[in-house]
Amino acid sequence: MTDRITLDHGSGGKASHDLLTSVFLTVFDNPTLAAMEDSALIAIGRERLAFTTDSYVVDPIFFPGGNIGDLAVNGTINDLAMRGATPLYISVGMIIEEGFPIADLQKIVATMGKAAKRAAVKIVAGDTKVVPAGKADKIFINTSGIGVIAAGVDIAAANGRAGDKILLSGTMADHGVTILCQREELAISGGFASDTAPLHDLIAAMLTAAPAAIRVLRDPTRGGVATTLKELAVASGHGIVIEEATLPVRDDVRGACELLGLDPLYLANEGKLLAFVAPEAADRLLDCLRRHPLGAEAAIIGELVADHPGQVAMKTMIGGRRRLDMLHGQSLPRIC
Amino acid sequence: MTDRITLDHGSGGKASHDLLTSVFLTVFDNPTLAAMEDSALIAIGRERLAFTTDSYVVDPIFFPGGNIGDLAVNGTINDLAMRGATPLYISVGMIIEEGFPIADLQKIVATMGKAAKRAAVKIVAGDTKVVPAGKADKIFINTSGIGVIAAGVDIAAANGRAGDKILLSGTMADHGVTILCQREELAISGGFASDTAPLHDLIAAMLTAAPAAIRVLRDPTRGGVATTLKELAVASGHGIVIEEATLPVRDDVRGACELLGLDPLYLANEGKLLAFVAPEAADRLLDCLRRHPLGAEAAIIGELVADHPGQVAMKTMIGGRRRLDMLHGQSLPRIC
Repeated sequence: MTDRITLDHGSGGKASHDLLTSVFLTVFDNPTLAAMEDSALIAIGRERLAFTTDSYVVDPIFFPGGNIGDLAVNGTINDLAMRGATPLYISVGMIIEEGFPIADLQKIVATMGKAAKRAAVKIVAGDTKVVPAGKADKIFINTSGIGVIAAGVDIAAANGRAGDKILLSGTMADHGVTILCQREELAISGGFASDTAPLHDLIAAMLTAAPAAIRVLRDPTRGGVATTLKELAVASGHGIVIEEATLPVRDDVRGACELLGLDPLYLANEGKLLAFVAPEAADRLLDCLRRHPLGAEAAIIGELVADHPGQVAMKTMIGGRRRLDMLHGQSLPRIC
Repeated sequence: MTDRITLDHGSGGKASHDLLTSVFLTVFDNPTLAAMEDSALIAIGRERLAFTTDSYVVDPIFFPGGNIGDLAVNGTINDLAMRGATPLYISVGMIIEEGFPIADLQKIVATMGKAAKRAAVKIVAGDTKVVPAGKADKIFINTSGIGVIAAGVDIAAANGRAGDKILLSGTMADHGVTILCQREELAISGGFASDTAPLHDLIAAMLTAAPAAIRVLRDPTRGGVATTLKELAVASGHGIVIEEATLPVRDDVRGACELLGLDPLYLANEGKLLAFVAPEAADRLLDCLRRHPLGAEAAIIGELVADHPGQVAMKTMIGGRRRLDMLHGQSLPRIC
C-alpha cells in the first residue's frame, strides 16, 4: 500500500476495500461494521433498526436527472432499503465553500425536501460548516439515516445460497456516464440522465410479492455492478455467474461508454438494485419489478453457484468467459 | 442577506442562525428539526431515541489536547448526551484530500477508536470519499449518532423556568483559544489545550443526583457560552442574567484572549456543558459536577428570569450591565 491517499481509495473498488480493511476495520473492531453492509443493523429495545451514512462530493453538483441534494437523500434511503428497512429519519451535514451562491443552496435544499417528501422520510437533524474559499469545492453533503426493519425480514449479503437467481432492476451506468459526460463537457448527444431514485418502494413491493424469497439486496453505486457482485460473492461465500447478453444497458449509454473507453459494468448507478432471490420466486419477482416504474427494464442476469466461491464469471456474448474483479486502478473521482 | 455564503454563516452565531431559519427550516418543515436542539428526539416503537449529526472541518487537524478524530466522536456523544440520551452508535463519514498521509489517517482513526471505547459507543457505519488535491483541505469528518433516552428523562431548551439556576461545568474558551493559537502559530506560552471530552458520564451522574431537576442541557461549542445562552433564552422564552465574576476562565486562556483581541464568552468549548436546573437542586448538582473530573471547576453563573424574555444580560465586574447577543460578524472559521 502506498503511504498517501490516492483517488483510487475513493473509487469504491479494490483500493477502497483494502483501505477499509487495513485502516478502519482493525481499529473500529465490531461485527456490525465488519459485516460491511450498506447499513448497520442495530437492536434498540425491541426494535431492529438500520443505520447508515454517506458523504456526497459529486462534481458537477447539478446534472441531468438531479443534483447533489436528491442524490444524497435517495442514496441514504437506498442504503437503508437494502436491508429491507423502511426509511424514517435522515440527517443532513453540509460543508460549504465560502462564496457559494445562496440561490444554488436553496435549489439544492428544495430538491432534498422534495426527495424526502416523496419517500415520506423526515429530515430531523442538520449541521452546516463553512470553509474558506479554496478549502473545499463548492459543497459536500453527508446524509445519515435510520430505518426500521419489520419482524421476519432478514436481508444480508451472507444469506445468498447456491442456485439463487440474480436480478438487476434496470439499465446499468446511467448515473456514471451522465456525470462523466457533464464533467468532460463532452457533446455526446443522448437522452440519458442520472437514475437517482429512492428504491424503498420497489423493495416494499418485492417483500409483499415473495417475502421469504429475497435473500440479498445491494445497490451497485461506486464501482458499478461488477464491483458489487464481486463484494457479494466474497460476502456470501459463493461463486457468481452472469450472462453478458442479459445485462440491460441503454444504447446511447453504451455508445457514450465506448467513446469514453469505459465499461458500463464498472460505472455507478444511483437508482438500481441487485437482488439474490430463491430460484422458485425469481420469475414472480422479475414480474413484480417490471410492473414498477423504477424496475421496468429489470432482468435476471445470472445466479449463485457452489463453484469458484468469491469469484464472478461472465459468459460473454461471443461464447467466452470473463472473470470480473473489483474496479481496479481506474480513477473516476467524485462520481457520487 | 448577502447572496453568497460567507464564513460568518459557519460561525455558529447570528448569520448561521439566520441561514438555518431562512433556507433550511422553510423547506425541511417539521417540528423535530424546528426545535433546533443538539439532537432530534425521535420515537420508534416504544423507544425514544436521540439522533444527531455534525461535520468537523477543524484546522489544524492535530492540536494540543486532541485531533479532528476524537473531537468528532466526542462532539457527537455530547450532542446526544445534551438530551439526556445514552450514546450507543456512531457513524463516520470521511472526505479525504488526495495525497493525505495514510499515517495521519491511521493516527486519527486510532484516536476515534479510543474515544468511542472510552464512551462505550460503537462505530457501526462508515463511508470514505476521496477528492482530488486542492478540492478539500486535508480531511473533513462527519459523525452522526444514535442514543436512547430513558423513561422519564425530559431535557429540552423549552423546559427552562424562571428561577432556574444556570450551571457551567468548567472553564470557558479552552478549545477555541487552543485552535486559534495553533493556527496563527502564536508563541503564546500557556499550558492550555482543547477540552475535547465526552460529557455523557457527567450527565449520568447529574441525572442520578437529581433526575427531575435538570431541565435544559447544552454544550456551548461554536459561538461559545454567550451565543448558546442567547439561543436558550429565545428557546425557553425567558430572560437570562449571568454574573461576570462567576465565569470560570483559566488565567493563561484569558491572557491569550486579550492578546488575540477575543472574548472568551464567544470562543468554542468542546468539553463543557450549560445546565438549567431547579433552584432547590442547584447546590447538590454543583457539588455533583465538582466531584467529577470533567466538572472540577464548575460554577453557578446565573439564573433564568421572567424579565426581558429572549435576552441575556451580564452583570459586569465593575457593576454595570452588558447585553450579550449571538456571535456577530466575527469570523472564526474552522474552529471545530
